[in-house]
Amino acid sequence: MTESDQASASPVQALLDGLHQRHASDFSGEVASYIPELADADPSLFGICLVTAGGVTYETGDTRHRFTIQSISKPLTFALALEAIGEEGVRQHVDVEPSGDAFNSITLQPGSGRPPNPMVNAGAIATTSLIKPLGFEKPIDRILNEYSAFAGRDLDVDQDVFISENRTGHRNRAIAYLMKNAGVIDDEVEDIVETYFQQCSTLVDCHDLAVMAATLASTGVNPVSHQRVLREDTVQSVLSVMASCGMYDAAGDWLYSVGLPAKSGAAGGLIAVLPGQLGLAIFSPLLDEHGNSVRGVKVCEELSKELHLHVMSPARRPPPPIRSNQTVVQCRSRHLRQEAEQHLLTEHGSKTRVIELQGEILFAAGELITIAVLKDIEELEHVVLDFTAVRDIDPIVVPIISHLADALDDAGATMVFADVDRHPAFAEAVEKTRQEAGLPAVRQFPDLDLAIEWCEDRLIKQWSDSDHDREIAILDHAATVGMDPGEVEELSSRLERREYPAGTRIYEQAGDVDEMLLVVKGDVNIFTVGEDGHRHRIATFSEGMTLGEVAMLSGRTRLGFAEAAGDVVAWALAEKDLTDLKQRNPAMVCTLLENLVKLIAHRIGNLSRNLAA
Amino acid sequence: MTESDQASASPVQALLDGLHQRHASDFSGEVASYIPELADADPSLFGICLVTAGGVTYETGDTRHRFTIQSISKPLTFALALEAIGEEGVRQHVDVEPSGDAFNSITLQPGSGRPPNPMVNAGAIATTSLIKPLGFEKPIDRILNEYSAFAGRDLDVDQDVFISENRTGHRNRAIAYLMKNAGVIDDEVEDIVETYFQQCSTLVDCHDLAVMAATLASTGVNPVSHQRVLREDTVQSVLSVMASCGMYDAAGDWLYSVGLPAKSGAAGGLIAVLPGQLGLAIFSPLLDEHGNSVRGVKVCEELSKELHLHVMSPARRPPPPIRSNQTVVQCRSRHLRQEAEQHLLTEHGSKTRVIELQGEILFAAGELITIAVLKDIEELEHVVLDFTAVRDIDPIVVPIISHLADALDDAGATMVFADVDRHPAFAEAVEKTRQEAGLPAVRQFPDLDLAIEWCEDRLIKQWSDSDHDREIAILDHAATVGMDPGEVEELSSRLERREYPAGTRIYEQAGDVDEMLLVVKGDVNIFTVGEDGHRHRIATFSEGMTLGEVAMLSGRTRLGFAEAAGDVVAWALAEKDLTDLKQRNPAMVCTLLENLVKLIAHRIGNLSRNLAA
Repeated sequence: MTESDQASASPVQALLDGLHQRHASDFSGEVASYIPELADADPSLFGICLVTAGGVTYETGDTRHRFTIQSISKPLTFALALEAIGEEGVRQHVDVEPSGDAFNSITLQPGSGRPPNPMVNAGAIATTSLIKPLGFEKPIDRILNEYSAFAGRDLDVDQDVFISENRTGHRNRAIAYLMKNAGVIDDEVEDIVETYFQQCSTLVDCHDLAVMAATLASTGVNPVSHQRVLREDTVQSVLSVMASCGMYDAAGDWLYSVGLPAKSGAAGGLIAVLPGQLGLAIFSPLLDEHGNSVRGVKVCEELSKELHLHVMSPARRPPPPIRSNQTVVQCRSRHLRQEAEQHLLTEHGSKTRVIELQGEILFAAGELITIAVLKDIEELEHVVLDFTAVRDIDPIVVPIISHLADALDDAGATMVFADVDRHPAFAEAVEKTRQEAGLPAVRQFPDLDLAIEWCEDRLIKQWSDSDHDREIAILDHAATVGMDPGEVEELSSRLERREYPAGTRIYEQAGDVDEMLLVVKGDVNIFTVGEDGHRHRIATFSEGMTLGEVAMLSGRTRLGFAEAAGDVVAWALAEKDLTDLKQRNPAMVCTLLENLVKLIAHRIGNLSRNLAA
Repeated sequence: MTESDQASASPVQALLDGLHQRHASDFSGEVASYIPELADADPSLFGICLVTAGGVTYETGDTRHRFTIQSISKPLTFALALEAIGEEGVRQHVDVEPSGDAFNSITLQPGSGRPPNPMVNAGAIATTSLIKPLGFEKPIDRILNEYSAFAGRDLDVDQDVFISENRTGHRNRAIAYLMKNAGVIDDEVEDIVETYFQQCSTLVDCHDLAVMAATLASTGVNPVSHQRVLREDTVQSVLSVMASCGMYDAAGDWLYSVGLPAKSGAAGGLIAVLPGQLGLAIFSPLLDEHGNSVRGVKVCEELSKELHLHVMSPARRPPPPIRSNQTVVQCRSRHLRQEAEQHLLTEHGSKTRVIELQGEILFAAGELITIAVLKDIEELEHVVLDFTAVRDIDPIVVPIISHLADALDDAGATMVFADVDRHPAFAEAVEKTRQEAGLPAVRQFPDLDLAIEWCEDRLIKQWSDSDHDREIAILDHAATVGMDPGEVEELSSRLERREYPAGTRIYEQAGDVDEMLLVVKGDVNIFTVGEDGHRHRIATFSEGMTLGEVAMLSGRTRLGFAEAAGDVVAWALAEKDLTDLKQRNPAMVCTLLENLVKLIAHRIGNLSRNLAA
C-alpha cells in the first residue's frame, strides 16, 4: 500500500475534505490589493494540508499551488536570528510584547525604539537586519537556505512579486528608517528592506507550509526529511511569540478560541502548530480586516474545537510516570530459588520496592516518584527504579533522584537503577552528584531482572546462612528424594560427572535433547536471544535443581541456551540410560519422575507469578 | 510518616527553600501605595507555595500570612461569569485581547465600548457586573462562595481594605461610569464597584492561592478537597486569558520567558499554573513597574527555566498511544491449545494483530493508530484494540475508529475491542455510528485474553476441521500414549467418570489436592481472583489434557480454581490409586508420568511465550 493510498483511506482525510467542502463556498473577505500580483490572486483557491509529527501528510484542495510566503517568513527569520546571534542579542533589537496594533503599525517602544515584537512588519524588518551572509553570498541566500530546510525542498524568490513589493513598500521603508534613526538597525536601510521584501516573496505551497509547521511541532526536526532545522530552545521561543503575537491584533482572541501558535501571510497562507503532534497549513487568499485568511481562520477554529487541539485543553494531561509499583513479593527475578529461599522472599520481599517508570520524566513526574517512595520509606530496604519504558529524562530530575537516593541512604535503604544505560547523561549526572557528596554511586543493572536478583540475593544473605559454594551429594539432590540408598546408588552408576567453569556454554538451544543434568553446585543461566540481538535471561537454576529434563522427556526444543554463571558441577543422565533404568527398576524411575514433576511445578509457580505481575 | 514530614524530606522542598533564600535579600521594587493598608505591608514578607495536581503541598516562608487577593480575583470571577451566563454572554461585555496597556488602563474598544480583556480593571469590573446573587444575599456572597471552593476553606473580606479601596477608588469608578455610558454594564455603578472592591479585598494566604492555581491545573477539581469547582471548558478559557493577558503589559514577555498562565495582584500575590501538573503561588509585596511582584516574577522565571515548565517546552511531548503492536504468533491467549492447533496459530497468527493502547487517546493518537493498522491492512484478518491502559478517549476519536472499523470490513477483516467497558461513552458512540451505517457492532470482550481467544477460535475453525464436541476415549488421551491396551485397561479400572455441566465449579483453589483429572470432553477454565476482586483466567484446558496433576504430585496449592466452560467430561485418578498402581505396575506409571511431563512441558512453553510477549 502506498503512502497516498493510506492517506486517502483515512478518516483524517475525510475530515479535511469535509472542512474544505464546507468552506469552499465562503467568498467573504478581500484579497490583498497593495500590489497587483496579490490583487490578481484567484479567490477560489483553497488548500488544507496537515502533516503529523510522524511525517504523514494529509492534504485537500489547492495544496500544490505556489504563492508567496509573506509574513509567515517572520517566525522563520526570527528563529534564524535567535540561532545566529542568540536570545540576548535579538532582544536588544526587538521585544516580544503583543502590540494590540495592526501588522503594519509604525509604533516603536518609547525609550528603546524597539519594535514591539517580531511578528509585526517593524519587528520582522529588525530581525531580518540581524542576518549576516556568513558563508553565503547575500543574507537572502542564507535565509532561503534556512526556509528550504524547513520545507524540505529548495525554495526560490518570486522576482515579480519582489520587484512590486520593493517598488511600493514605502511604509515599510519608513518604518525601517525610523528604526535606523532609533539605532535599532545598523546596516543600510535599502539593503535590509530589499532582503525583507525578498524573503516575503519566497514561493511556497500549502504543503511546504504544513511541513514547516510540522517541523516546529517536532521540536525542530523536519519530520519528512528528518533533518534538524532548529534547536529545541529556539522552537520554544518561536512558538511562544507565535502564540502571543502571531495573529496581529486578533492574537488574544486566537489564543482564546483556537489556542495554537500560528502565523498568517498576506498572500493567504496560514500555519498553526500543535506542539509534539502536528503542523497545519491553509491557503486561501481572501483576507479579513486583520489581514488573516478568512477560510484559514475558520478551518483552524473548527479543527481546534472538533479535535481539541487547544494547547490549554484539559484533555492534554501528561501520563503518570509510574507504570507499576510492586514489591518482590509480587514480582520476582528469573533466578529460580530453593524452597526455603522462596519463603524468605515471600516473607521479607515487601521491603524491596520495584518501580517501573515510563514516558517523559519531567519535574512533576520526578516529584511524583519521590512522593511514592517517601510514603513508606521507613519500611524499605531496596528501591529499584526501572527506566526501560522511559523516553526522556529532564536534567532537573537529577537532583530530585539524587536527593531521593540520599534520603534512602539515611533511612538505611538502597536505591538501584535498571536499564538506565539508555539515558547516559542522566546516569552520569546522578553519579557525579553522589561523588561530589562523597557518596557511593547508585548501582546500575542492565535490566530489571538482574536488578531484582541482586536485591533478592542481598535479602537471602541477610536472612539465611545457607552456603551456595558447597557441592551437594547426589542423595541430597531434590531428584532423589524418597529413594532408598540402593536406588540412589543404581541411579548414580548411570550418572556422568561434569564440571563447567564459569562462563562455559553448557548446552545450545538447538542442540540434542538426549540428556538431562542434576546440578549439584553453582548457578546456571538460561538465555534466549531476542529480536534485538541481545541475550535475555529466562531463568537461573541452582544446585539441587535439574536442567534439560523437560526437553529430554518431551522431545521438544529447549527454551534457550545454558551457560555456567559461576563454577558449576552437574551429573548427566542420558535418555538411553533412563529408558534402560525404566526396564530394570521402574519403581525408582517413578520416584525420579515424580521428583522431576515437583521441580517443574516449582518453575511453573514462578512463571505464573511473573506473568500475573 | 505525616504529610509534612514527607514534604520536608523532599528535594522539591529543598528547591523552594533555595529559591526563597536566594531572593529574600532582594528588596527592589515598591509596595503598592494607593491605600494605607497596602502601603503598610512589610516588604520582607515572602512565601512560596507549590501544590501538585496530586494534592501534595510544598511551602516555604510566609505562606500562611494573610493578605488581600486583589487582581488575582479577576480570573476567578471571569470563571464564575463564564459558568453563570456562558461564553457568548460574557464576550458581549468583555473582549480577550491583550491591550498592551497598564492594569488601570481606561481604554475601551472603539465601537463596542468593551474593555479589552477581563484581566485589566475595566474588564474585571465588567465581569463582576455579570454576577447576580442567585440564591445568595448579595453578589459578593456568591463570589466568596466560589473563591472558598477554589481555596478549599471559607474566605472573608478584609473590611478595612475594602473601605479604603472604596473610598479612594475614583479611577475604577470612572472606568465603570464610562462602561455604563457605553452600555457595557447594566446595574448600578456604585453597587458594582462595591462588589468589585469587596472581591479584591478577599483575604487569602499564599497557600490558598497555590491551591487555587492547582485547581486550575487539575482541570477544575480542587486537588486537596477533591471538589469540582469549574467545568473543564471553563478552565481552558480562563487559562487562555491568563496566558495572553494575565501579566498586564508584560504578558508577552511573560509567555515568552516563563510560559505559564499566570495572574498577579497588587498586594504581592502571584499565581502560575502548569496545566495538568501544578499550581504555584508566591507572596511578596514589593512590586515592579507593571504592578507584578518582583520576587514573584523572579521565582517564576527561575522555576520555569530550571524545571522546564514552559507550556511550549519541546520536552512536553505526548506519549505514543500504542504500547505494543504484536500478532498472535507472539502473543497468545491463555487457552491451552492442542499441538496441531498450536501449529495453526503459529502459521496463521500473523494475520491477527493485537494492539495495546495507552494514555490519552486524542486526535493525533487516533491518527497514529489508524496509520499503524492501515499500513498492512491487506494482510490482516483481525485487529484487537486493547483499552486496558487507556486513561481517556476524546470524542473526536469515535469517527476515526469507526472509519477504521469500516476500512477493515472493506478489507475483509474484523476489529474487536478488549476492555473498552471503562470507556462506555466511547463504546456506545462507536456502536451508534456503526448502527446508523447499518453495520454490525464492533465485538467487545471484557479483557484482552478473551478477545485474543475469540480470534484464535475463528482462526482454528477456518483452518482445521477438528471437532471439539466429541468425547475422546481414554486410550486416545495424551496421558496414555505409549501404553499397551492392558496398561490402559489397568489404569482405566482406577478412573472414576465425572460429568460437569457448563458453569460447574470443578475444584476450589484451596481444596484438597488428592486427585487429578483426565479431560476427555469440553473446556475447563482456571481462574484466580485478583486484588481487584475480579476473576482472571490463567488458563483453559481442553480434552486430551490433564488437570490438577501438578498440585497432586507436588503437594502444592493449586494456582486457581477450575470451572467447566462448556459441558465437561473427565476421568479422576486419586493419589492413593496412583500410589497403589506404582506398586503394582511401576512401568505403566512411568509411562503415565512421562506423558504428564510432556503435557506440562506444553504448558511451560505457553507460559514462557506469554511472559516474553
